[in-house]
Amino acid sequence: MTKPMVFVGLLHYPVYNKHMEIVTTSITNLDVHDISRSSRTYGVENYYIIHPLESQQKLIREVMGYWKEGYGAVYNPDRKEAISRIKLIESLEKTIEDITKITGKTPKIITTDARTYPNTVGYKYLKEKISAGEEPYLLLFGTGWGMRQDLMESADHILEPIYGPSDYNHLSVRSAVAIILDRLLGESWY
Amino acid sequence: MTKPMVFVGLLHYPVYNKHMEIVTTSITNLDVHDISRSSRTYGVENYYIIHPLESQQKLIREVMGYWKEGYGAVYNPDRKEAISRIKLIESLEKTIEDITKITGKTPKIITTDARTYPNTVGYKYLKEKISAGEEPYLLLFGTGWGMRQDLMESADHILEPIYGPSDYNHLSVRSAVAIILDRLLGESWY
Repeated sequence: MTKPMVFVGLLHYPVYNKHMEIVTTSITNLDVHDISRSSRTYGVENYYIIHPLESQQKLIREVMGYWKEGYGAVYNPDRKEAISRIKLIESLEKTIEDITKITGKTPKIITTDARTYPNTVGYKYLKEKISAGEEPYLLLFGTGWGMRQDLMESADHILEPIYGPSDYNHLSVRSAVAIILDRLLGESWY
Repeated sequence: MTKPMVFVGLLHYPVYNKHMEIVTTSITNLDVHDISRSSRTYGVENYYIIHPLESQQKLIREVMGYWKEGYGAVYNPDRKEAISRIKLIESLEKTIEDITKITGKTPKIITTDARTYPNTVGYKYLKEKISAGEEPYLLLFGTGWGMRQDLMESADHILEPIYGPSDYNHLSVRSAVAIILDRLLGESWY
């Protein structure tokens, strides 16, 4: 590897619901579109939509088909380009396998959480590590009320929570992905 | 004024469609939720959803009622808090009037565009201006294929386009708002 290689994953299982029960969430159309467009803008290699059910994957494949080959591809070619980076995949294990096959290295897994842990890192630190281009990174986001605790804790690094001027932090996953990609892969505007 | 005061506006008329015709777009649920949550996280005073039709405003008011007073307020109080910053309003003129009434000053209007203009400014410059707290700012975003050219050009400042490592820039308006708020009002993580 000589150039930065970043992958994004959106996990639909195992995640918590509001009552801290382990559930599988549904794939939403907006998560498909917004996150693929942000991923494409920031040069992410692949955006993995991780869902264990073939029926859900099939549904999303049909929506994607409209934008990739149907009328949508003609009407909005930019969206076609963004969607071409999406991979529908059944598990986190398969995602790691796929990235290892593509890059020749096991990816470092990065998650985010509202709390801090012993392996919490800052954005500046991770931006420098990524740009060194020595290892592939998988930025892993949970849906629902967040990914299962043991997955969170097994990550190589956990990113600091995003704060504005207040202590309110309830960004949508779509907004959080956009901001994190901008901090890690965006130009140095500051 | 002694503290930074920033307002966000999402314009549904007058904006272009794909064929560069002037149209009124519909308010979408996701724009309501995602942008109000980002606005609340970054300490934005009010988020103005600008739409000329009373029928559209009424529809959104009903959805908001569910989250403010209905079951949604109990189920998800964080969302209630975000939504309390939303104002439905009929025009850009009324928005400016409202901000002037609240702050005692006419707001500076900031837009974004993929092209550069004589009044294009960088994020660092604007972040410093905002934090000086001398004037209120309205960050104005267009829906559809962007706001009418004359509105764009009459803004006090136009923000530089957001770039990642490529020349592809087709972020959703929800992602663009999140990134711009983070750059202008977020902590100095860099």
